[in-house]
Order: sequence, then structure tokens, then C-alpha cells
Amino acid sequence: MSRIKIKDILSSGEVGQKVLVKGWVRTFRSNRFIAINDGSTINNLQAVVNFENESEDTLRRITTSAALAIEGELVASMGKGQNIELHAEKITILGDANPEEYPLQPKKHSMEFLREKAHLRMRTSTMSAVFRVRHALAFAVNKFFNDKGFKYLHTPIITGSDAEGAGEMFRVSTLPLGNPPMTEEGQINFEEDFFGKETNLTVSGQLEAEAGAMSLGEVYTFGPTFRAENSNTSRHLAEFWMIEPEMAFYELEEDMDLAEEMVKYLISHAMEHCADDMEFLNKRAADEDKTKPANERWDLGLLERLNFVVDNSFERITYTEAIDILLQSKPHKKKKFKYPVEWGIDLAAEHERFLVEKHFKKPVIITDYPKDIKAFYMKQNDDGKTVRAMDVLFPGIGEIIGGSQREESLEKLKTRMAEMDIPESELWWYLDLRKFGTAPHSGFGLGFERIVQFVTGMGNIRDVIMFPRTPKSAEF
Amino acid sequence: MSRIKIKDILSSGEVGQKVLVKGWVRTFRSNRFIAINDGSTINNLQAVVNFENESEDTLRRITTSAALAIEGELVASMGKGQNIELHAEKITILGDANPEEYPLQPKKHSMEFLREKAHLRMRTSTMSAVFRVRHALAFAVNKFFNDKGFKYLHTPIITGSDAEGAGEMFRVSTLPLGNPPMTEEGQINFEEDFFGKETNLTVSGQLEAEAGAMSLGEVYTFGPTFRAENSNTSRHLAEFWMIEPEMAFYELEEDMDLAEEMVKYLISHAMEHCADDMEFLNKRAADEDKTKPANERWDLGLLERLNFVVDNSFERITYTEAIDILLQSKPHKKKKFKYPVEWGIDLAAEHERFLVEKHFKKPVIITDYPKDIKAFYMKQNDDGKTVRAMDVLFPGIGEIIGGSQREESLEKLKTRMAEMDIPESELWWYLDLRKFGTAPHSGFGLGFERIVQFVTGMGNIRDVIMFPRTPKSAEF
Repeated sequence: MSRIKIKDILSSGEVGQKVLVKGWVRTFRSNRFIAINDGSTINNLQAVVNFENESEDTLRRITTSAALAIEGELVASMGKGQNIELHAEKITILGDANPEEYPLQPKKHSMEFLREKAHLRMRTSTMSAVFRVRHALAFAVNKFFNDKGFKYLHTPIITGSDAEGAGEMFRVSTLPLGNPPMTEEGQINFEEDFFGKETNLTVSGQLEAEAGAMSLGEVYTFGPTFRAENSNTSRHLAEFWMIEPEMAFYELEEDMDLAEEMVKYLISHAMEHCADDMEFLNKRAADEDKTKPANERWDLGLLERLNFVVDNSFERITYTEAIDILLQSKPHKKKKFKYPVEWGIDLAAEHERFLVEKHFKKPVIITDYPKDIKAFYMKQNDDGKTVRAMDVLFPGIGEIIGGSQREESLEKLKTRMAEMDIPESELWWYLDLRKFGTAPHSGFGLGFERIVQFVTGMGNIRDVIMFPRTPKSAEF
Repeated sequence: MSRIKIKDILSSGEVGQKVLVKGWVRTFRSNRFIAINDGSTINNLQAVVNFENESEDTLRRITTSAALAIEGELVASMGKGQNIELHAEKITILGDANPEEYPLQPKKHSMEFLREKAHLRMRTSTMSAVFRVRHALAFAVNKFFNDKGFKYLHTPIITGSDAEGAGEMFRVSTLPLGNPPMTEEGQINFEEDFFGKETNLTVSGQLEAEAGAMSLGEVYTFGPTFRAENSNTSRHLAEFWMIEPEMAFYELEEDMDLAEEMVKYLISHAMEHCADDMEFLNKRAADEDKTKPANERWDLGLLERLNFVVDNSFERITYTEAIDILLQSKPHKKKKFKYPVEWGIDLAAEHERFLVEKHFKKPVIITDYPKDIKAFYMKQNDDGKTVRAMDVLFPGIGEIIGGSQREESLEKLKTRMAEMDIPESELWWYLDLRKFGTAPHSGFGLGFERIVQFVTGMGNIRDVIMFPRTPKSAEF
């Protein structure tokens, strides 16, 4: 008899059907009721043991997280919340889980504790739901872009350039750390390193993706990026996945349209394809919220927040308008903001949250930031002060997407690079894109774990990636 | 007027329709006929210039790779191989490409030369076709697994473990090279490194994916992996993308079924969704083949080879049977093999090619290899000599997939690790998967660039990834 997945049994199993299921025990009650789960769904199948059929030894070995194969017949269930259950005719223990040693007993564990057991935590309801939703979001990314004719590019992870300056980098080398070869001038001789030059882990695939856009038209990356920053927060990882679309012939307006359409698509896809998981996570988020001080609680539940994002047009304002709103705001006038507000500042989290959560009460896209707080490659406006940047701000998490129209003028780009001390020799190929057949083009970046966090409602980014990499931690 | 992509115009544009296209000039003939391409398809749109409408200056600037916007009306075409063309009413030069400086003129360039211009080479027909096919294959990977209920996992790129021993590794560090902090015992003090321990770039996500399979059931990875090996060949990259599915409750037979179904799906998907590109690559491969000595040519054309793989069941034989066939073979008896044949050897490329191309004339899956030439985690057979490994061999390229049933017995795994000097302390969490709810499970790995090479017919793996990373080369 071939195995049927529990998801399929629960959705389309028929009374009287003989089935074989395999999975792990979630709970075993009264020496009679096994809740078994195989990872295909958050819902367990209830298997009812006929204890006259089974040996004492078998019954003793049905413990939390033991792996079982159960053959039996599907019958209508009297139990609450289930239509069908399995009358077990034959139970085989595939693998034991000694309850004296197994660390995840059926009770509430702290997220910190579960992180230390990251190899087993996906067996819990919460974490399995998170990883099914993460999968759905990842698939939605690829489907969204594929259906629009975008091409998926794999930009390099190891890079010989450190010109983008998006953050601190990890060095990649095969030279002996304590005893590298030296040149006659007493410098480390990187010519003897694997790549013949100094190399690091990428902080962004954007510049390479621009080369793709300027030939294939519309492209995106979806791959790992790295920051060697000592940020021990609930929102930072040293290794995380980024989505970076780049589009030839798009101006900023079309860039914003695409970003808004994309996040709405991702969220809708997850809600549609992971309805059971999202219902569970919605309840979990509500329980979590109750443990917080009143002023830190959400106005809306998780599913309400997600529907709210999907159903509303994002507000679009310029940076200058945003500053004006903040200057006119109560918290500014009453000196409740911790950081000062004036034209030219990088908006602080408190400012972003005020605009999104208090003033507009919906996602906000801010455009045309001061050039001095943005990257060299952003298209300069005619005012000489601002660039065609756009940041998408979400409730609770602030900036979720950052993008811009890219500078297509060779002369303007060179001037800006000189002002910012970026050597042309590092980016000769990037300049070539402006030298040969340049055109207006745009793009943006989305930190994948940020959107997974937003959709799952998980408070700590370490709980939405399988094995998180953070300062002083690279376990598993 | 909003832009229409050339792919859409060629497939569904109507005579009389007014359109705006944007793209790059491929060729400009007789001061009249512009072949324009925007990356959406391998086919160019022919735009016919009314030179009385356009200034001398504009006409002079219509050069290969210049970016243009053309407004006009679609008309029936008299030209060969096209049904429709564009009567240009307004031409705007978006970006020039000085023909004195632009390196890719419309003539045949060597692949070596194009690699030095990798930021522009995707504007050539061959490379744009390769990258559209690469995209189609990547999307097919995700769609294949998604539709089967597999969950996409992002396993860590930076790893603190070097236990798998699949190859030489790149060190990842933020310690100062040449002057790292030392312990009192005179060792490098990795506690002061970013992660508080020595870290490397991953060579495989398999072990981590197994942890995923033993909770979520069926999972796969699709991400970059690294080998710091000094292999300057047409088949090796230092950075490449791997696909690694892992499945709880699968035995070797089901593992093989999945591998065979997957590669057939990928190839079919590319042929269906990239028909124009594949037709072009088929012709290119045929031209390429003609330049080779007779004994190195393919018996079949590219599309014929692909259809052949899709249409035939893969032959499944054991390693022991493979050795018997080789011992009985003409090349062995006539001493034509360079490497000796005897039970226990790692099959050489010439042996694999004989089995696939001469003996069976179809893809072959070889199972049950000697344990001494395979990894520690493969399930041991009862004979004490072989393991439940499987390698899928393809014509021309040899091994394209390697997999196995995984050892699920804690005791057998520990014994094998001890024999191979792999410390248990490094893989405590991997052993836990056998300690708590172990079950039969299997998986395999597919090097993504290998399948892209096979499908596109490209001879060198450096021409199927955007910016290749190889010894002494990390440009762009």
C-alpha cells in the first residue's frame, strides 16, 4: 500500500478508505488517540489505536516525535474539529524518541530555547507553519516575476568589488589567516589568493542585475546577501535573502507600481495557499499581543493587517512633504520625538511609524529623498538636491522596500562617484552600461525575511529562517 | 502611449495597431531597416525608417546597441521570416553606442572574448537565449517541487561545520588577514571572529535539508554552493547553484523515480516555454558540432538529445552489474580504456560514457556503489560492502545527479563516522535526527549549471552563468 500524505487525507479522504500514513507523533492520549503529523499540513490526523491489537511494547514506544507507519481504515470522527479519523489496524515504529531525552515535549517552549534546537523546532506547530508560509512566499516571488516575463538571474555571491558601500563585508579567502604571502612592499599578496584578488561576500546583486536588465529587459535576483555588522537585534541577520528586480525602460512611477503590486501579490498568495497555517499564526499573534504592554499592541490582528495592506492603495508622498507633515505633527510640537525633524535627516523609525500608523494609517511610499543620504547610483533630480529614490514603509516594521530610478547619465554618474570617492576603475563595467545604449531604468530591493516576518507575525527575524546567522552564532 | 514588449508584438500585434517599442539596435541596414530587440524574445522586430521624417543626426546615431524608442504603426511584412513590421513614425535616441568604442559588433565573437565582456554579452543572441532558458529551468525547478508539495528551504551559506568533506572550502572571516588575534597557546583566536568560531562557505545544504525533511516531510534547497578547488575546466565553477531535495519516508526506488521525473520535467518545460530560443540553440549546436573532429561529434542534434532523454526510461543497474558489463566490453578487452576496470574503482568518465552512449544508448542510473568511494551518510546495505547510492549519468556530461537513501540507523551512522574520522561533536544535531523519530529518507543533488549546459548545448560552464567565479577570476 502506498503512503498518502495527511494533508490529502484530511482534504479528500473518504470514509471506508484503507490508507497508510507515515509521520511523527505529536501527542498520544489515553493510550488510545495518536495525533500524527507528517509536515504536509499544520493539522494532525487522529489515529485511534485498538490496544488489543498492539503489544505493550509498541504502545510504550508511541511517544512524542517517534516516527510511525500506521495502516488502517478511515472512519467518520466524533471528535471536535475533524471530520475523519483513522482506525489503526497496524502500527509500525519506524524510529523511537526517548521521552527522557527528547527536548521538545508537547508544551510551550520559549522561542529562545527553540533556536538552540533549530534542527528539531520545525516539528512544532508554530515553526512548521512559518516554514510553509515562507515556502509559499518564495514560490510567489518566482511566480509573480515569471508570469510578468522577468528573468531570474543568479548574481555572484563572491565579489571582487566593495564599491557599493551598502555595509560591512565578510572576507572570502583561501590564504592562511595568520601567515599570508606578502609582496616585496610588505603588503598581503592577494595575487596568490584563490581569485587572484581580494574578495568578499556580496551585500547586493543590484549592480550586476542592472547589467542583466540592460540586455534582457526585466530581471530579478533572489539570493543570499551578507552584512558583517554587529547588530544583535530582532530585525537583523548577517545572512539573509534579498529580492532585487531591475527593469529597463521603467521610470520611478512604474517602479512603485511594481513594488506595490508585488507585495500585495505575495501576501495574497500566502493567505490563499496557507489558509490553515495563517489561521493558526493569526491566533498565535493575538495571544502574543496580549502579553505586551497596551501601548505596544497592534490595533489590528495579523490577518486584518494583511488584508488592510492588500486592500488599500499605498500613499505616495515626497520626502519634502513627509518632513512638512512631521513638522506639523503633534508629537513634534509636543517634543515627543526622540530625534529632531528637519529637511535632510534620515527618517528615524519613530518618524516612519508616525506617518504610516498614525497619520495615513496605511502603507506609505516616500520618494525624492535628499541625495546625501542615498546611494551614488540613484537618478539625480533637476533640483540638484534630491534623487529619484522610493522607500515603501509598512506598519510595525518601517522600511520594507528600498528602490530608485537609476542614474542613466554617464556624466552625472561619474560626477557623483567622484564626489563620493568611488573609483571608476572598480566599476568600469557598470559605467559601460551608461556608455553603450543607456536608457531610463529602475529597480528595488526587498529583504525576504522582512516580508516573511510581516506575514507570519513573528517578532524575531531569527525565527523565520531555518538556521540564523548572527554575531557569535553560526550553529548547525 | 505605453510601451509594448517585442515578444507580445510578434505574437499578437495586429496590422494597423499603433505601438511604442523600446529596445536596443541589433543591426541597421541600408539606412532603412532597424532590427530592434528588447530582451523579451530572441526575435527582433524590424522597424522601417521613413528617412524623410528623421534628421541626419538621428540616422547617424542608430548604431548597434544604441537604445531607441520607436513609435509607429504595425504593417504586414514582405520580409522573410516575419509577418509584421513597424513603420516608424517617431524615433527617439535614448542612449548612444559609439561604434568606434562599442566592443560587440554584429559579427561572430569567440566565447572567450565575450566572457571578458560579460556585462554586455547578454545582448548577443546566443547568450540572451541561454539566460532565458536558464530562467525557464530555474522556474521549472520551483514549480516542479511546489506542485508536489515540497517546501523550499534556504539552508545556510556560511557554515561552522566542515564535516561533510565534499571538497575544499573558502574561509569566511572578519579577522585581520596577516594579523589575527591569538590565544595564549599561540593559536588563532576564532572566538574573536564574527561568528565566534571558524566559518566557511557551504559545499552542500544536504545535511541541513535532512533536518527539514525530518519535520516538513518533503523539502528542497536551491541555492549557491562553493568549491575552492583549482579546477580550470569547462565543467567546474568555484561558485555554482545546487538543487538538493530531501524526502522523509522515501526509499532509494522512490528517490530514483523522483530524480528521473524531475529532469524530464525540467527539459520538457524549457523546450515548451523557450521554443524559439531552443530552435536557435539547436542550430548553433549543430554549427558548433561541425567544427569538431568526427569522433567528438554528437550522434544526435541538441533537440534530438533532449527529446531522447524525455522519451526514454532511464536504465537502472547496480554498480556490480556495471562493472561486469565493462569487463565484458570490447574497449576493455582491447585495452582501449585508459583506466583499469575492477570492482571497487570510482568509474572514470570513459566508463560512464561507454555505458550511456555505447552500451545502453540512454541515461543510466547506477546504484549500490562500494561504500569506500561514497560519503558517510549513505545507507549501508546488508552486504557490508555497498551503500544505497544512485548516480544518474547523462550522455556527454556523465554524472548529472548524485543521491542516496540516507543512513537512518544511529548506530551504523556513528560507526561509519568513526571509521572516517568525522567527530560526532561536529554533527551532534545531525545524529539527533536518528535519535529522535528516525525513518527511512532519501535525497539527491543536481548541479544547476550542469543541466543548463545540457539543455542549452553550451560547451563551457562559464557560458551558462552570468558572471562565473573560477580560479584567478572574480570579475564584475
